[in-house]
Amino acid sequence: MRQSELFTKTRREAPKDEVAKNAQLLIRAGYVHKEMAGVYSYLPLGLRVLNNIIDIIRQEMNAIGGKELILTTLQKKEVWEKVNRWDDEVVDVWFKTRLKDSTELGLGFTHDEQLVNVLTEHIQSYKDLPVYVYQIQTKFRNELRSKSGIMRGREFLMKDLYSFNRTEEEQDAFYSKVMEAYMNVFKRCGIEDKTYVTFATGGTFSQFSHEFQTLSEEGEDTVYLDQKNNIAINEEVMSDEVLAELGVHKKDLVQKKSIEVGNIFKQGTKFTDPFGLYYQDERGESKSIYMGGYGIGVTRLMGTIVEVLSDEKGIVWPECVAPYTYHLLSLLPDDAESIAFANTLYADMEKRGMSVLYDDRAVRAGEKFADSDLIGIPWRVNVGKETASSGMVELVSRATGEVKKLSRDELLAR
Amino acid sequence: MRQSELFTKTRREAPKDEVAKNAQLLIRAGYVHKEMAGVYSYLPLGLRVLNNIIDIIRQEMNAIGGKELILTTLQKKEVWEKVNRWDDEVVDVWFKTRLKDSTELGLGFTHDEQLVNVLTEHIQSYKDLPVYVYQIQTKFRNELRSKSGIMRGREFLMKDLYSFNRTEEEQDAFYSKVMEAYMNVFKRCGIEDKTYVTFATGGTFSQFSHEFQTLSEEGEDTVYLDQKNNIAINEEVMSDEVLAELGVHKKDLVQKKSIEVGNIFKQGTKFTDPFGLYYQDERGESKSIYMGGYGIGVTRLMGTIVEVLSDEKGIVWPECVAPYTYHLLSLLPDDAESIAFANTLYADMEKRGMSVLYDDRAVRAGEKFADSDLIGIPWRVNVGKETASSGMVELVSRATGEVKKLSRDELLAR
Repeated sequence: MRQSELFTKTRREAPKDEVAKNAQLLIRAGYVHKEMAGVYSYLPLGLRVLNNIIDIIRQEMNAIGGKELILTTLQKKEVWEKVNRWDDEVVDVWFKTRLKDSTELGLGFTHDEQLVNVLTEHIQSYKDLPVYVYQIQTKFRNELRSKSGIMRGREFLMKDLYSFNRTEEEQDAFYSKVMEAYMNVFKRCGIEDKTYVTFATGGTFSQFSHEFQTLSEEGEDTVYLDQKNNIAINEEVMSDEVLAELGVHKKDLVQKKSIEVGNIFKQGTKFTDPFGLYYQDERGESKSIYMGGYGIGVTRLMGTIVEVLSDEKGIVWPECVAPYTYHLLSLLPDDAESIAFANTLYADMEKRGMSVLYDDRAVRAGEKFADSDLIGIPWRVNVGKETASSGMVELVSRATGEVKKLSRDELLAR
Repeated sequence: MRQSELFTKTRREAPKDEVAKNAQLLIRAGYVHKEMAGVYSYLPLGLRVLNNIIDIIRQEMNAIGGKELILTTLQKKEVWEKVNRWDDEVVDVWFKTRLKDSTELGLGFTHDEQLVNVLTEHIQSYKDLPVYVYQIQTKFRNELRSKSGIMRGREFLMKDLYSFNRTEEEQDAFYSKVMEAYMNVFKRCGIEDKTYVTFATGGTFSQFSHEFQTLSEEGEDTVYLDQKNNIAINEEVMSDEVLAELGVHKKDLVQKKSIEVGNIFKQGTKFTDPFGLYYQDERGESKSIYMGGYGIGVTRLMGTIVEVLSDEKGIVWPECVAPYTYHLLSLLPDDAESIAFANTLYADMEKRGMSVLYDDRAVRAGEKFADSDLIGIPWRVNVGKETASSGMVELVSRATGEVKKLSRDELLAR
């Protein structure tokens, strides 16, 4: 895309009320617009990044047999009363609203109950299981405070996957697969070396759940990390018994702040039994169904990437999620020959299917460099003083600053 | 996909409270789940159709220069007070909710105000215009009654495009482009021969707006149609003056029920002026910006396709939006040779990138035929009695019932 056609502008300062680094950078670079605390609109560049992250997640969920659907935001009271999660005293993040006839409705903060209710119409027999379904859907949580930018939204995008199995063994096998798929997601998003599978609070049906925690000073969570053994423990479950059980020694642990980018949870029959979601086995006997829930905060993941990989000049996107792979800069906006060279190069890059944002604006080079640093596209291509005569361009890595001289054809062959 | 892995089941009857044909069929075939009147979840087959429709719309919007973004559901009072659309007395379809600190919020029923507010931070100069932005986003409308299935949602998916132009002439040119793009959408969705550009109520800034009305007995609108001249007029603007102006004679008109699948509207400066969204022209003078709004009800369009193209046996999807192109039926679930043939054919079709749902379930042929008719995939491939020995399959058109005998290779070459 030509940058002259992109209506968003960069800005020097983020709004004064924005204290989170991720949102400050994303607003300044024109990726998002802050509507209110915890509520952000995604402008064209931001939506491109979000869609890249969604594609990665979708591929990994499909690869383990997930079937995608999409449930609704509006929620009925009756459904949520079944497991006693309707009352605002029990769940304090509900947004509630009303139909014209005064019927109270909720805005989904998660979808366990609703999904189980839907499945009662479709699952009857052992032949119908296992079922693995997921959605990439907007959640609403009425957070009292929301100061972490797009990392703690009142309105945010989440991927939620749910498993329904006949036996605990079958569930455990799937649980392990999800763990692997999640690490693939975080690897492809460029944050694997900072992201740890973390032991966290379980529940009635398992001793632990697992979180995926990305180390960051801006995180709201605290974990204890045994780097040697690649084990992390959420402070909420830290105790001498747990350490003994996991074979971890206190002296090997360091305390770190971190961001929870995902969590996986065995829910047992907590939701399935109350809804009467049973299956008939081979002998016609009615049996309980084991359920698991697996979340990734999609917008939070985008915020985490910004927190973890940015530098003092701006955002540094990994190639896989970047809005564009190349940022082509025409640096001599008064030189017809140079402009012609850049125009042709842009057209040729597009023709080859290269993903390129072309800064064709009539502004000075310094402004283009600063904007490019802020926007954080992985590879900058400079069309400068000698380019038109020599046919050579500069290729600059946003992450390392490394500069290479390349011919037009070498660039196009990448 | 193998149908044995698809957890949704077909059913003989829709829920008793569902009176709309589109939702009755979509529920019975397992495309959607009714949460409450006007609120539907989209199950895997339904989401596939929806995504196909979205892809068509997205392509057509991008082709006329639309830039995609996504705004939020949660809306601030201050923004909507600017043009006096916050009050429930003025806009009677608001869903309202509250933050913890009691601040009142609304759920977006449209996004004109919010978008204009966002753009005040990005548009200053004549160089920043024109701007064409769109989103494919969930809207919430607190309808008193909602009896038309997915055609009148309280929660529904909409594509809303907005244009911002320097002059009326520039706007008019874009308006015509949108009209053409919309007809492309309806053509690709298989309803072009029933869909008419219709003169409808304008406003302060133009005499008429235009609607895209699809003829259907189930429609909530009434239009007067001059088929000879390809002109339709919404009854809301019918008058002798309008007829004279459009050069239409009363005797050429027939009255028809219809579904409004899209509308386009010149909004003038109604929203831009109150928000102070002006631009500076070449001489530094501050000028007003002309805005247009262009909507397609995405879920309504899906419902309309079902209403208009279904028959007594079920849904009849056009190829472009169908969840799969081929429905492969293994009709002899007790015949190992026949099953092996179908398995291999399925694998080969998948390998060639053909879009196929494979009914590999161990149920009788009659049930498979009935389900296949109900689900409405365009091409059925029957693997029956003589297939394994002769190598020939039957290819049946869902729309016409036409049957062709084809060899395996002929099928794979399609």
